[in-house]
Amino acid sequence: MLEQVLNKIDEDIEASLERLFALLRIESISTDPAYAGAVRRAADWLASDLAAIGFEAAVRPTPGHPMVVAHDPAPPSGPHVLFYGHYDVQPVDPLGEWASPPFEPQIVTVDGRKRIVARGASDDKGQLLTFLEACRAWKKAAGSLPVNVSIILEGEEESGSANLEPFLAGHAAELRADVALVCDTAMWSPTRPAITIMLRGLVGEEFVVTAADRDLHSGLFGGAARNPNHVVADIIAGLHDAEGRVTLPGFYDGVVDLPDEIRQIWDSLGFDPAAFLGTVGLEVPAGEAGRSVLEQVWARPTCEVNGMIGGYTGEGFKTVIPARASAKVSFRLVGKQDPDRIREAFRAFVRSRVPADCSVSFIPHGGSPALQLPHDGRFLERARQALADEWGIEPGLIGSGGSIPVVGMFKQALGMDSLMIGFALDDDRIHSPNEKYELASFRGGIRSWARVLAALAE
Amino acid sequence: MLEQVLNKIDEDIEASLERLFALLRIESISTDPAYAGAVRRAADWLASDLAAIGFEAAVRPTPGHPMVVAHDPAPPSGPHVLFYGHYDVQPVDPLGEWASPPFEPQIVTVDGRKRIVARGASDDKGQLLTFLEACRAWKKAAGSLPVNVSIILEGEEESGSANLEPFLAGHAAELRADVALVCDTAMWSPTRPAITIMLRGLVGEEFVVTAADRDLHSGLFGGAARNPNHVVADIIAGLHDAEGRVTLPGFYDGVVDLPDEIRQIWDSLGFDPAAFLGTVGLEVPAGEAGRSVLEQVWARPTCEVNGMIGGYTGEGFKTVIPARASAKVSFRLVGKQDPDRIREAFRAFVRSRVPADCSVSFIPHGGSPALQLPHDGRFLERARQALADEWGIEPGLIGSGGSIPVVGMFKQALGMDSLMIGFALDDDRIHSPNEKYELASFRGGIRSWARVLAALAE
Repeated sequence: MLEQVLNKIDEDIEASLERLFALLRIESISTDPAYAGAVRRAADWLASDLAAIGFEAAVRPTPGHPMVVAHDPAPPSGPHVLFYGHYDVQPVDPLGEWASPPFEPQIVTVDGRKRIVARGASDDKGQLLTFLEACRAWKKAAGSLPVNVSIILEGEEESGSANLEPFLAGHAAELRADVALVCDTAMWSPTRPAITIMLRGLVGEEFVVTAADRDLHSGLFGGAARNPNHVVADIIAGLHDAEGRVTLPGFYDGVVDLPDEIRQIWDSLGFDPAAFLGTVGLEVPAGEAGRSVLEQVWARPTCEVNGMIGGYTGEGFKTVIPARASAKVSFRLVGKQDPDRIREAFRAFVRSRVPADCSVSFIPHGGSPALQLPHDGRFLERARQALADEWGIEPGLIGSGGSIPVVGMFKQALGMDSLMIGFALDDDRIHSPNEKYELASFRGGIRSWARVLAALAE
Repeated sequence: MLEQVLNKIDEDIEASLERLFALLRIESISTDPAYAGAVRRAADWLASDLAAIGFEAAVRPTPGHPMVVAHDPAPPSGPHVLFYGHYDVQPVDPLGEWASPPFEPQIVTVDGRKRIVARGASDDKGQLLTFLEACRAWKKAAGSLPVNVSIILEGEEESGSANLEPFLAGHAAELRADVALVCDTAMWSPTRPAITIMLRGLVGEEFVVTAADRDLHSGLFGGAARNPNHVVADIIAGLHDAEGRVTLPGFYDGVVDLPDEIRQIWDSLGFDPAAFLGTVGLEVPAGEAGRSVLEQVWARPTCEVNGMIGGYTGEGFKTVIPARASAKVSFRLVGKQDPDRIREAFRAFVRSRVPADCSVSFIPHGGSPALQLPHDGRFLERARQALADEWGIEPGLIGSGGSIPVVGMFKQALGMDSLMIGFALDDDRIHSPNEKYELASFRGGIRSWARVLAALAE
């Protein structure tokens, strides 16, 4: 039966691609309230598509953007899986750096390989559709799915997932399954798939420093009036020491050294730090001294200023001392670092550095702890074999520097482990202009899920 | 005759105001190329108005925005003066903070005093029109001007004045006069006029730091990739020491302590630092330790970051490590500080702090040395008396923290001193939202110039 399903996938690949294009055309930027209508349209589109596949699907409200939830009306016996993906996308700026409009998907051929270019092509619309298309092929070719599949698709992953945990907790009985399948991670390389077993956590925090009650002329007031640009820059500059370590008191509490077992698995991956940095035009690891690049991005905590702004930033020059300046800062967490304590330590750090005549306000942007999943276990072994069958090579068991808060929430709210299997590549430019998803990722991803579903039924 | 001229001014004040409103409606933002057409329209409007007064006036091209130059076709014998003002204005952002649209001038009454609210109301359209309206009244009431008046109006003062010095040098014979009159400064208080005898210089410089060849996901690359936001913040944070002094090597070369004579003149002004800072919601002098506020803003050099930007700065959050970040920095100069050497010292400072894998580029935004004018002399004495006659109180001989590069250029290119007389107030919000000019400044300014012209003829 699996052979027929795989053949069906290959036969229908053009139609699958058309569906992906339709979803990519919807501008579902969740962080910007101006796009709320588009986010809703993406949810509606997915609920319809799931219904067309044969699921009982609904758009379920939250205080923010809705969830799409689907169940199989005639599930087989055997394991129950809950698939997770997110249909919202990152903002598109700087828009000028896109070679084609971000919401007009294109097929572009580079070095003989076809890729789908659009915002969300990889993160996460392309990825989540690999699973939906696999279900569609099973339903079409076999009449039913090999395991009991439920699906939850989130619309706020790129804007802090504020409503996900309450939603899971409020629908725990409905959503609890034997294992979660999460498709939001990368392959080890274009030819070798991966299962991600370690994720960094995340704390996002914005702070705004205000001084005078208006913008000032820097000639008339410069030298006497406090400049919030300087205050913000001083705070940012103070966040790291000369060795690249984060200076917040208590920041490294709960950071554990890499377990030997995991280190051995990673050593066997043959990671090439020069090639990794070289893909984005860099040569020199810039982080914590004395750590390998793979440790720096998978297993060490970080602090990055994701945005800062103050004063006049348009064309030309304006001799202004601005009334306010601000920065958006994120921390990646590992081990047992506590997001709430990190946030409080950061706020205390900022407050202690805000001088007389200034005030500071904070805007939280989500938080989640780091996560380490079992690197053995029944479902992982089956998925591993299925991926090996599809790609002809053992999948890597890897870490990821990114944060996928839902995996922690599944554990917390539903007592459920996750299998993180994704088909993105490191050069997919997710969150950047010209985001892409390889056609090979899309097709291989659909085929992989078809095999994983079969394997989980065994 | 002067009495008739002053009466004419008061009779015609409504028509004068209408002309000011017409000029204020033209969006002549010189720093933004999108407004080049509006800048040109402002020049045309002024040339027409000068012709209507009775001048031979023309819009004269430069490689940037044009100059408006006018001469009296039938000048009297006696002193020749060259009046300078600028018809370009600053950008209007943050636009949301304007109570009324910046290019729709309004009369607003505050505490019983009428004010004109618009971008450029004070800086410098309102100010330059005080002189033009005084000339108009002289021509109407007396048939001719009391001294030989030439006029030059610049369109690039707010964007670096790149073409002013070459234009002056190229037309030195045409433009050289006995003294320049410059109307771009403030009164000492709403009831006491001033002649500015000391100006700080200015160096404007922008720098852009680039690292990776694209924006990066801070989860996937954070900890290993260089973050330009951190590099720019480190550079900004390094520009001042704990005492508020600028750290550039050689920065204080040529900085001289205030001459005793000037210090005595200033001590007599009765400056209130708490009131000065209080007008903009501040309480604590933030600059160089051990200096009075008046010294800080008039007689000490500064370094201010006027703008900085990097990464995602819109609504919400985006976990990006940007490819680049940048800042616009200005230095106010005093004494004999050399703008070219300061610029070079700054560039060297920045270059020395740009780490591996980063590149930096620089964009210069103008430069001029500080200036100290004679605080006695024939023309100054006459103007002083004329101002005392109009306002009923001796004018203050003051410094200004702002920079008016043209005054140095007049000295350099035309060998000519300037009388800086202006009617702005410190709370005019120039360069800020809700810029205003007091109606009393406008009317008093016109009347003052009428008197100064008469006094200079004596």
